[in-house]
Amino acid sequence: MQAQLIALDWGTSSLRAYKLGPAGTVLEQRSLASGIMHLPSEPRDIAGVRCSDGFELAFDAACGDWLDAQPGLPVIACGMVGSAQGWSEAAYRSTPVDVASLGKALHTVRSLRGVDVHIVPGVIEQVGLPNVMRGEETQVLGVLQSLSASGELLIGLPGSHSKWVEVVEGCITHFDTFMTGELFAVLSKHSLLGRTQKVSEQFQAEAFDRGVQVALSKDGQRGVLSTLFSARTLGLTAELTPEQQPDYLSGLLIGHELAGLPASARHIPIILVGAGPLCARYQRALALCGFAHVSLAQEATERGLWQLAVAAGLTQPATEA
Amino acid sequence: MQAQLIALDWGTSSLRAYKLGPAGTVLEQRSLASGIMHLPSEPRDIAGVRCSDGFELAFDAACGDWLDAQPGLPVIACGMVGSAQGWSEAAYRSTPVDVASLGKALHTVRSLRGVDVHIVPGVIEQVGLPNVMRGEETQVLGVLQSLSASGELLIGLPGSHSKWVEVVEGCITHFDTFMTGELFAVLSKHSLLGRTQKVSEQFQAEAFDRGVQVALSKDGQRGVLSTLFSARTLGLTAELTPEQQPDYLSGLLIGHELAGLPASARHIPIILVGAGPLCARYQRALALCGFAHVSLAQEATERGLWQLAVAAGLTQPATEA
Repeated sequence: MQAQLIALDWGTSSLRAYKLGPAGTVLEQRSLASGIMHLPSEPRDIAGVRCSDGFELAFDAACGDWLDAQPGLPVIACGMVGSAQGWSEAAYRSTPVDVASLGKALHTVRSLRGVDVHIVPGVIEQVGLPNVMRGEETQVLGVLQSLSASGELLIGLPGSHSKWVEVVEGCITHFDTFMTGELFAVLSKHSLLGRTQKVSEQFQAEAFDRGVQVALSKDGQRGVLSTLFSARTLGLTAELTPEQQPDYLSGLLIGHELAGLPASARHIPIILVGAGPLCARYQRALALCGFAHVSLAQEATERGLWQLAVAAGLTQPATEA
Repeated sequence: MQAQLIALDWGTSSLRAYKLGPAGTVLEQRSLASGIMHLPSEPRDIAGVRCSDGFELAFDAACGDWLDAQPGLPVIACGMVGSAQGWSEAAYRSTPVDVASLGKALHTVRSLRGVDVHIVPGVIEQVGLPNVMRGEETQVLGVLQSLSASGELLIGLPGSHSKWVEVVEGCITHFDTFMTGELFAVLSKHSLLGRTQKVSEQFQAEAFDRGVQVALSKDGQRGVLSTLFSARTLGLTAELTPEQQPDYLSGLLIGHELAGLPASARHIPIILVGAGPLCARYQRALALCGFAHVSLAQEATERGLWQLAVAAGLTQPATEA
């Protein structure tokens, strides 16, 4: 099947490349470790020129052969590749944004082989505390593609810096960031709490649930700075084994994150996007917190990139195959 | 002046020794780096015996000469020296506790030179989430010594793990722990937030105050997991310089800690105990949060140890010199 678009999901630690066919069908995909903080450095010839630029090298490794086979193929990319530390900075667009407005705002960098790479800008919210995202906006638009774009939605993207994105009538109107994943990592690795933890192969469901419940309890209202210490004291009082402590801490932090969602979130559909095991934790915690309408979305990034390329006129929409 | 008591404040990273005279007057004091995690290991003769035990060696270095000069001098110690990782474990006492009940519960370890070291037990609270302290209970009792022991008080001990101790009629009835100091340290050293921080010699008052105010704001109600990211985004939007970011984060975390204090704290006297610069930060943040009755206490540990020694009958109370 003839390809129509090369779509790159280019973040801090990895680069995923998709060759997309009619209607955005994934024809081939690759995963490279060449995130913008881990670029290749070994010089190589690209288009007859000796090159040592990490972005060019990674780009060529990701899809050079696809472009050799089909030279006119358009290229779109999202993620940290458009940050100040990326290949070329794509200035943030302010909320509200939708697929049409972001598709019109793609930022172009010309690669050594003469191909334009169209970079999706990140999104900034400047009402109240500023908030930014790069890459997640594309996932959100990918989720919306498969839905009837009516009414209100809350889209959760758990991770190192979890995003919760409010969507109204297909438009991103507001979002928040919770540093839950990174906090879990630094506390486990570098704080007193890590010293008594023992990593278990098995998910410690009871301890996880207890963590969530503590976050929701009266004790939890004092905030996470206060409840954190319980990950240690429940160990001291033998109420948590060393193997249970990591999942207790995970549940506690996720519970505090969910307690910070707007009250309206209880009554609108929630969609989770991200790595399967992490989404499963959030789904479990959301159920414990009484959020009723939760579902999971798949393939959000490639769908979002396809939608944006269509909106930008880089490729043609097509009836489903 | 004749000494009456040797008092040791023996924590994780340091050991402070006080030679106290009548009425607890400090005759001499020393500070050693021999906390229970940093004990000496070079074998030495103690009381004619070759000794390589770190606790014995540190004890001898701290006050061996005082005991040589006055062999019958009683010795009292508080802090992590009484933990499971300490010299000898002094089991926790449950709240409520006061100077009389703790003084009756001292745990004794006999040193190589035949002298008994009386260790103050830590305190545990088991209502709701368990909470523990070792050393802070002695500071609290030291603060109470100089007050008329009537009514309600809240005593704040800022630090790596800040304690907030409620006192009613001279009795410790409840306490909470906030991991504020440790969280500040691990985030600054090991998280994304540290990467754009630049340490400044000068206290960045405006940035600190802004952090406190964000914690108190509507945004702050989503919790610290959410507001943390603003330490980065306010840098991205050039609202905070790299030099301002550490004190912004400090104010933000302290603000969230104070937001977690019980509502009743606004109407009762608050006393802060601890290192001067840190107490100054808390005093500033408390004022911004509208806490009206805040004062500072000095020499709390040595006064607390004296009071406990008197309650235990190790030494005699005396009229002030």
